[in-house]
Amino acid sequence: MKEDDYFKNLTDRERAIFEGGISMGALFHQFVGTPVNADTIESLEIAIRDSILLQPAIVDVAVKIRRDLVEENSGVMGYTSLTGDMLSVKITTKINEKIINTCISYDEELDYPIMYIEY
Amino acid sequence: MKEDDYFKNLTDRERAIFEGGISMGALFHQFVGTPVNADTIESLEIAIRDSILLQPAIVDVAVKIRRDLVEENSGVMGYTSLTGDMLSVKITTKINEKIINTCISYDEELDYPIMYIEY
Amino acid sequence: MKEDDYFKNLTDRERAIFEGGISMGALFHQFVGTPVNADTIESLEIAIRDSILLQPAIVDVAVKIRRDLVEENSGVMGYTSLTGDMLSVKITTKINEKIINTCISYDEELDYPIMYIEY
Amino acid sequence: MKEDDYFKNLTDRERAIFEGGISMGALFHQFVGTPVNADTIESLEIAIRDSILLQPAIVDVAVKIRRDLVEENSGVMGYTSLTGDMLSVKITTKINEKIINTCISYDEELDYPIMYIEY
Repeated sequence: MKEDDYFKNLTDRERAIFEGGISMGALFHQFVGTPVNADTIESLEIAIRDSILLQPAIVDVAVKIRRDLVEENSGVMGYTSLTGDMLSVKITTKINEKIINTCISYDEELDYPIMYIEY
Repeated sequence: MKEDDYFKNLTDRERAIFEGGISMGALFHQFVGTPVNADTIESLEIAIRDSILLQPAIVDVAVKIRRDLVEENSGVMGYTSLTGDMLSVKITTKINEKIINTCISYDEELDYPIMYIEY
Repeated sequence: MKEDDYFKNLTDRERAIFEGGISMGALFHQFVGTPVNADTIESLEIAIRDSILLQPAIVDVAVKIRRDLVEENSGVMGYTSLTGDMLSVKITTKINEKIINTCISYDEELDYPIMYIEY
Repeated sequence: MKEDDYFKNLTDRERAIFEGGISMGALFHQFVGTPVNADTIESLEIAIRDSILLQPAIVDVAVKIRRDLVEENSGVMGYTSLTGDMLSVKITTKINEKIINTCISYDEELDYPIMYIEY
C-alpha cells in the first residue's frame, strides 16, 4: 500500500498532530538514558535533531537539553543519564498547508515532562 | 498547569490521535533492540502492554510480536534483537466519547513498519 | 569465525567478567525510560530477566526494581520512567567452571547506580 | 563507598575488560533503533562517541556506522533504524597501565554482531 493511502481517514491537521506525537514519543524513549554532561550537550542535541528530522512529515526540530539540570546531576562521576525532565523540544510537522508544533517541557506542578500541541 | 489545560486547543478526536501517536513512538523506540527468542515473546509482549497502558489516555494495548520473524532471525546464537518489522500492535486511546485505534504493522511494499490510525 | 575463537585471548574468569559487563550495560540502556508503576514492576522484572538470560554465558538473572522509588516518583500522572537508581540486579555468568556475579546497585555516597563484580 | 573500593577484587586488566563490556553493551542498547540515513551517519557517530567517552575508564571510542547497510536499508521512506549489524566500534579502556580494546563487528558466519576483546 502507498504511504498516503494509510492516512485518507485523517485531515491534514490530524495527520500533522499524529506524526508530531509519534516523533516526540520516539525521541523521548530513544534518547533517555544516554550518558551526558555539559561538554556533550551540543553533540547530543545535534544527533537528536538530525535523527528525528528523518521521520515522516517533520520539517523542523529544535532541541534544548537543560544545562542546569545536567550540571546539577553530574556528581562525582562527572556525568549523568539524560532524563525526560531535561528535554525542551519543539517538533514541527507539515501536511500540505497545515503546520503543527509539538512540544515537550517539564511542568513543575505536574512534576512530569508533558507533551502537548503549541497554541 | 493542570494536565487538561494543555489540551484545550485540541478536539477529543485530535487528542486521542495525539496520545496514540506518542505511545506508539514510545513503544517502538523503548523496546526495539531487546533480546528475544520464541520462548520469551510472551513475557516481552506482557511487559510492553503493561508499560504502555500506564501512559495518558490509553485504555487498551494489544501486542503481537511476529513469531515467524523472531524464529527466522534466531540463528546460531539462539536469539535475536527485536526490530520494528516484528511488531504488530494496536493501541486504543479514549478521550471522553472518542475512541481511536493506533496501529503499527510491517508493509511489504514500503518495506517499513508503518504507524497509522485504523479506519 | 566460530564464537569461541573470538575469546582465546581471555581466561575463563576474564570472559565471564566481560559477558557480565556487556549484559549489565545492555540491561540498563535497554530498559531505562520504560513507563512503570507499582502494579507493573513484576511484569517488567520478568521481561528484563527473560531477555537478558538469552545473552551469551548468562546462567541466572535476579532483577529487583525498587518499589519505594517507583512509588515516590509516581506522582499525579500515576506512573514514572524507570531510572538506573531503581535497579538492583545480579547477573550470573559462567564460562566452564568459572562463575561471576555482576551487580548494579545505587550508591548514596556516589549518588550513582554502580556496576561491579561481587566479592 | 568510594568508586575504587568496588574494584579491589579485580586486576587492572580485569577491570579494563569489565568497563569495556559495560560500555559496549550500553552503546548497542542505547542507540539501536535510532532513525538514520547516509546524511546523518556523521552526527550520530559523534554523539555516540561523545556519550560513551563519559563512562568510567574510557579513553577512546572509534565509531563507524556502515554506510553500505544504511543505504541498502533506506528504502522508499528515505531512512532506516540503526541495527547492531551496522556497528563497527572500538572502545579503549585504561586502568593504570593496562589498556584494553573492546570491539563490535558483524560476523557473517555467525550472522551476529559480536563483541570481543581485540588481540
